[in-house]
Amino acid sequence: MDEADALRTAGARRHRDRALPVDPGLSRYPAQVGPHGALRFVSVDTAPSEASEVEATEAAGDPVTPGARLGSRVLRAVLGAPLRTTAIAHEQMRKLVALPVLSADALSSVAYGPEAMLGVLVLGGSAGLAFALPVAAVIALLMLAVGVSYRQTIRAYPHGGGSYVVAGANLGRRAGLVAAGGLMTDYVLTVAVSVASGLAAVTSAVPALAPRVVPLGAGVIALLVAANLRGVRQAGTLFAAPTYAFIVAMAALVATGLWQAVGGGQAPAPAAPPHGTEAVGLLLVLRAFASGSTAMTGIETISNAVPAFQAPQARNARTTLTIMVGLLIALFAGTIALVELDDVVPRAGETVLSQLAHQSFGGGPLYVYTQAATAAVLLLAANTAFNGFPRLLSLMARDRQAPQLFRHVGDRLAYSNGIVALGGAAGVVYCLSGGSVDRLIPLFAVGVFLAFTLCQAGMVVHWWRERGPRWRGSLVCNALGGALSGIVFLVAAATKFGSGAWAALAAVVAVVAGSAAIRRHYDAVGRAVALGSATAGSPAPVPARGPDDADARQFTVVPVASLNRISVRALAYAVSLRRPLLAVHVSPDKDDAERFLAAWRAWGDHVPLEVVLSPYRAIVVPFVRYVEALHRQRPELTVTVVLGELVVEQPLQRLLLHEDLEPRMRRALRTQRRVVVTTVPFHFPG
Amino acid sequence: MDEADALRTAGARRHRDRALPVDPGLSRYPAQVGPHGALRFVSVDTAPSEASEVEATEAAGDPVTPGARLGSRVLRAVLGAPLRTTAIAHEQMRKLVALPVLSADALSSVAYGPEAMLGVLVLGGSAGLAFALPVAAVIALLMLAVGVSYRQTIRAYPHGGGSYVVAGANLGRRAGLVAAGGLMTDYVLTVAVSVASGLAAVTSAVPALAPRVVPLGAGVIALLVAANLRGVRQAGTLFAAPTYAFIVAMAALVATGLWQAVGGGQAPAPAAPPHGTEAVGLLLVLRAFASGSTAMTGIETISNAVPAFQAPQARNARTTLTIMVGLLIALFAGTIALVELDDVVPRAGETVLSQLAHQSFGGGPLYVYTQAATAAVLLLAANTAFNGFPRLLSLMARDRQAPQLFRHVGDRLAYSNGIVALGGAAGVVYCLSGGSVDRLIPLFAVGVFLAFTLCQAGMVVHWWRERGPRWRGSLVCNALGGALSGIVFLVAAATKFGSGAWAALAAVVAVVAGSAAIRRHYDAVGRAVALGSATAGSPAPVPARGPDDADARQFTVVPVASLNRISVRALAYAVSLRRPLLAVHVSPDKDDAERFLAAWRAWGDHVPLEVVLSPYRAIVVPFVRYVEALHRQRPELTVTVVLGELVVEQPLQRLLLHEDLEPRMRRALRTQRRVVVTTVPFHFPG
Repeated sequence: MDEADALRTAGARRHRDRALPVDPGLSRYPAQVGPHGALRFVSVDTAPSEASEVEATEAAGDPVTPGARLGSRVLRAVLGAPLRTTAIAHEQMRKLVALPVLSADALSSVAYGPEAMLGVLVLGGSAGLAFALPVAAVIALLMLAVGVSYRQTIRAYPHGGGSYVVAGANLGRRAGLVAAGGLMTDYVLTVAVSVASGLAAVTSAVPALAPRVVPLGAGVIALLVAANLRGVRQAGTLFAAPTYAFIVAMAALVATGLWQAVGGGQAPAPAAPPHGTEAVGLLLVLRAFASGSTAMTGIETISNAVPAFQAPQARNARTTLTIMVGLLIALFAGTIALVELDDVVPRAGETVLSQLAHQSFGGGPLYVYTQAATAAVLLLAANTAFNGFPRLLSLMARDRQAPQLFRHVGDRLAYSNGIVALGGAAGVVYCLSGGSVDRLIPLFAVGVFLAFTLCQAGMVVHWWRERGPRWRGSLVCNALGGALSGIVFLVAAATKFGSGAWAALAAVVAVVAGSAAIRRHYDAVGRAVALGSATAGSPAPVPARGPDDADARQFTVVPVASLNRISVRALAYAVSLRRPLLAVHVSPDKDDAERFLAAWRAWGDHVPLEVVLSPYRAIVVPFVRYVEALHRQRPELTVTVVLGELVVEQPLQRLLLHEDLEPRMRRALRTQRRVVVTTVPFHFPG
Repeated sequence: MDEADALRTAGARRHRDRALPVDPGLSRYPAQVGPHGALRFVSVDTAPSEASEVEATEAAGDPVTPGARLGSRVLRAVLGAPLRTTAIAHEQMRKLVALPVLSADALSSVAYGPEAMLGVLVLGGSAGLAFALPVAAVIALLMLAVGVSYRQTIRAYPHGGGSYVVAGANLGRRAGLVAAGGLMTDYVLTVAVSVASGLAAVTSAVPALAPRVVPLGAGVIALLVAANLRGVRQAGTLFAAPTYAFIVAMAALVATGLWQAVGGGQAPAPAAPPHGTEAVGLLLVLRAFASGSTAMTGIETISNAVPAFQAPQARNARTTLTIMVGLLIALFAGTIALVELDDVVPRAGETVLSQLAHQSFGGGPLYVYTQAATAAVLLLAANTAFNGFPRLLSLMARDRQAPQLFRHVGDRLAYSNGIVALGGAAGVVYCLSGGSVDRLIPLFAVGVFLAFTLCQAGMVVHWWRERGPRWRGSLVCNALGGALSGIVFLVAAATKFGSGAWAALAAVVAVVAGSAAIRRHYDAVGRAVALGSATAGSPAPVPARGPDDADARQFTVVPVASLNRISVRALAYAVSLRRPLLAVHVSPDKDDAERFLAAWRAWGDHVPLEVVLSPYRAIVVPFVRYVEALHRQRPELTVTVVLGELVVEQPLQRLLLHEDLEPRMRRALRTQRRVVVTTVPFHFPG
C-alpha cells in the first residue's frame, strides 16, 4: 500500500491548498458553450462544506468523435432521446392497467396450455381424450393453490420478491441461483412459445403465411427488442387493450359455444373419433398433465412487480392477483369445456382455439377478432418477459452473480444489455424449434415449476423464521403450493426429459455454475482491489515516503522513431517529469541506426539514448521486451513509458495512410506490471 | 516550439549526467533470460563515443500477449521463421537461373498473344485471317525495337530502373505516377490473364474442369499469395524448370509441325473456312494488332531486376535480355507459322496452342506435357508480378506516394502488404471476368504500353541530358521504341476503349489522383511535425523556460469511480507528478454522489475533489467534456489525465465480466488537444 501512504503524506502537506490554475466549479469559465452553443454543465447548489458539484446536461453526453456522433444520432432517432435517471419514479400503474399488463403472460397461456395437454392425450385416441376433464380439473386446482401461495409472497415481499430474491434470502445463495436459472429459461421460453403460439393463431386464419413462420417470428422478436430498448413501459395504458380484447373474445367464445351446445344452435359436425397411437397409461396422463400445466406460466408476474402498483401497493397487487387467477381458471375451464362439447381434437395447421372459434363464429369478423386478440395478447405476454428477464439479470449483477454490464440502465431507462441478451437467446431457441409450439412446450414447464417450487419453499422458511401475525395459515398455503409445484416439476422433468426438458435442465445447471464462477471471480477482484487489503496483516510495511523518494523509485523511457515534433514533444513532457530518463531508438539495421544517431547528435543530444537493433525488423515487441529487461534489473521501480502519438483527425487518412504504433505499444505494455503508459498527442491538422 | 526549448534547457543542465537507476546496456542485468530461457538481447560492440547499442534476438520478437503468440505460431508454421534483414543480400541469380525466372512473364505471353490476335481477325472470316502474317510481322519487329530499347535502359540504370523510376526521374513526378498507374494495372492483369490462360491450358486437356475455372483460379491466386508471403524467391532454381520445359515443348511443337507440313507427316485435316461476321477494315486489323501485342507483355521485367543478377550485373542482364527477346520472337513466329500451316482457328473450349499440340502430337504424353508446361510457365508468369507489384508500391511509398504500410518488409523479407493487395486486386478482376482470357485482354495492352512509352520517353530525356559515350545511338533506339510503344498504346486505348480499356485507363487515373493526394497529405504532415517548422519565421518566440515554470503550465485530473486500490494507485501516481491536481467523480445521481463523498471523507480527503452529476448516466463523455470545459479556461496549459486501469489477464474474464472504461476514455480524450493521457495499470491476478 505504498500508494495510500504517498497519498496520506501528500494530504498531510495540504497539497489541496495549492491553488488549481482552473476553477473546478466552472463558474470562472466565461463561455461554457460547446460548438453548437449548448450549455454542457450547470452548477449545483451545495452546502458550503460539501465538495463542489456540477451537473452535466444532455449536451454533455454528445459523443466526442464524429463517427460515434453519427451512430448516436441514428440510435436516438430509433429509440428516442435519453431520459434522466429521475424519470424512473414515474412508472407506476393503476389496477385497471396493471391487471391487463401483468396478466397477459398468465392469461395468454390458455392459448397453448389446453392444446398442449390435448396434444398428448390424443396420442391415446378416444381413451386418452377421456382423461381431459380430470387432468384439467387437477390443473385448475393447482392454479388456485399456486395463486393463493403467491398472495402470501406479496404480503411478505411488498418490494417485489421474485423467486430469485425469495429463494436466495431464505434458502441460501445456491438455491437463489437455481431459481434464477429456472426463471431465465422460463423467460426465454415465454418469448419463444408466445411468439410461436401467436403466429400459430395468425397462420390458422391465414394458412398462406405458415411456411414463413421462422423469419416472421425472428422479426417479431427483433421488434420486441427494439420496442423495449426504446422503453415501452411508457405506453402501459395502450398495452391494456389486447388483454381486455382477449378476455372479451374468450368470454364470447365460451358463451356462444355453451349456448349452441345447450341446444339453441346447430349441432357441431361430429368429428371422426381419433385413433390412438399409444396405450393409455399413467405415463401418458402424467405427460399430458405436465404439458397442460404450461397454462399457468406467468402466474408469478404480479408478485415480482409489486412496486409498479400505485399505493397501497401490496393490497392492490393482491387484489389484482386474485382477479387474475379467477380469470385464468375461468378461461381455462371454459376452453376445456368447449373442447369437450365441440369434440375438437388438436391437429396440425390450425390451433384448438381457432377450431373452437370457427365452430362458434364461422369464418366472419368475430372469428378474425378472436384470432387477432389471441395473437395480440401473446405478443404482450412475450413483451412481459422483456421486463422480467433484464430486471432479474440486473439483480444478479448487483449480487455480483452476473456480468456487470447487465447492471446498466440505458439511455431510455431500460436494462439494454439484458433486453438484447433475451432477444438473442429467445431468437436462437425459436429458430432452432422451427417456430413450433409442440417442440417448445416440453422445455417450458421444467424451469417455471422449478422457480415456483423454490420460491414457495423459501416462503415456508420465511414464515417459520418470522412467525408474524397469521404466519401459520401463510405457511400452510405456501407449503401446499410448493409441494404441488415440486410434484409438477418432477413429473415434467421425468416425463419430458428426452423430448427437451434435458436442455432446460442443462441451461439451469449452466446458469448456476456460471453464476457461481462469476461470483468467485468478482470476489477475488474485489479482495484484490479493496483498500487496506494489503496492509491487513501488517499495519505499516512500508514507511511513509516523501515525494523526493518517489522520484528515485521511478524512471522514464521514451521510444523515439525519428526526430520530429511528435517525439520532441513526448521527450519534453518526459523531461518535465524530472525523473531519470532514457530515450530508446529501435532500428531495423545498422545504417538506419547511424543515420538516426547523426541526426540525434546534430540536434543536440539532450537526453541519454540507447539504440536497440532489431534485425527481424519488428519495432513494438522488441521495445516492450527491452523495457521489460530494463525493469527486471530493478523490479521495484515504476517505469513510465511516454509515447508520442500522431492523432490524424480525418478517419480515412488515419486508417489508410498512418500506422499507429501507439495503440500496439500500449496493448503490449499493458501486460507489464508497474509500467505506466503516458500518451502525448500531436494533432494533425494542428 | 516550447518543447524543443525545454529540451535544450534540460540538456544544458546536463540532465543526462544524472545516473539512470538501471543499465541501458543490460550488462548489469544478471539474468536476461525470458520465461522460456531464451536470451532476448545481446550487447553490440560500439565505438566508445557512440551511444550504446543492444541487439534484439529472434526471441525478443515473440508476441507479448497469449492471443498474439498463438496467431504468430500459426503464421510461422505456414510461412516459416522470420529472416534477418541482412539475409536480403543473398538473393542473386546466375544467368541460367535468371533467364527462365525473369523471362517467364514475357515468354508465356505466347500462350495468349497470338490467340488474342487471331480471335479478332477471325471475326473477319478468311479475309480477316489473311492479315495474320503481316500483323504478326509488325508485332515481331515491335518486340525487337522494344527489346533493343530496354537494353539501353539497363545500361543507364544498372541499379534497376522500372518505368516508374525512369519516367519519374526524367519526365517529372507526374509522369512517374502515370507510369506507375500503367504498371500497376499491368501487374494486376498479368496475374489475372496468366491464371486464366493457364487454366485454359488445363481445361483444354481436361474439359470437365471448365465450369469450375472461377473458384479454381481464385484458389491459385490465394496459393500464389501464400507462397510469396513465405518468400518464394528462395526457390529460384526450382522455378527455372517450367520456362525451360515450355521452351522445349514449343520447340518440339514447331519442329514437328514444320516437318509434318514439309511433307513427312500426314496432311492436317482441312478446317472448314470460317465465316466472317465483320467487314475486314483498318479498325479490325488495328484491334487485332492491339490484342496481339499482349504477346510482348513482361519484356520489361529484366530491366527492373538488374540488381538480382550476379556481377557484372548490367552486362549479365543485357545478355539475358537479348537471349530472351530472341526466344520470344522465335516462339511467337513459330506459333504463327504453325497456325498458318495447320489452318487452326480460335474456338471456344480449346486454346490455339492445344489445337496445335493435338495436331502435332495427337493426344498422347507429348500433348499432355505441352499443356502442363504451358500452365506451369503461366503460373510462373503470374508469380513474377508478385515480385514486381509490391516492389513498385514500396518505391512509391518511399517517395510518400503510397500508404506507408507498403514499405514494410515482412518477417520473410517480402513486402507482405503489397503481396496481399495484388492478390486481392487480381482476384477481384479475375472473378469479375469470369476467368475468361478474352474479356481480360482488352484491358491489358493499355497499361503495359503506357508504361513502356513513358519509360522510353524518359530514357530519351536521360540520354539528351547525359550525353555520355554512345548517347546518340541509345537515344535513337529509345526514341524509336518509345514512339512505337506510344502508337500501340493509342491504338489499344482507341480500339478497345468500349470493351474494357476504359477500366484500365480509369485505374491509371485513380492511381495518379490517389497518389498525388497521398503525397500532399504526407507532405502536410511532414511539414507539421518537422522540427524547427514553427520557429522558422520567428527565431525565439517563446523564452526558454525552466522546468519549475513548466509545472505551473500543467495540471492533472484523475477520474475516480470508487475508492479502491486501482484509483488510489492512480491518485498516488498523479500526486507524484507534483502538479496541481483535481480528482473528479462522475455520479449518475445524488445518492451515489453522497455515498461516494462519505467514503472519500472517511478515507481522508487528501486531494481536492469535484463531483460531476450525470443525470443521463453516461460516464465517459461527460467526464471528457468536463476536462474540456476545465481546459477551455486556460487553453495554454497541458492537462494530464491519469486513468487507473484494471488489467484482467484472463481474456474471457476481461471480455465478459469487465467493462473497461479506460480505452473508451482514452479514445474520447484523444480528440482533445494538449491533453496527455496516462494509464496506471493494476493487474489481476496481482
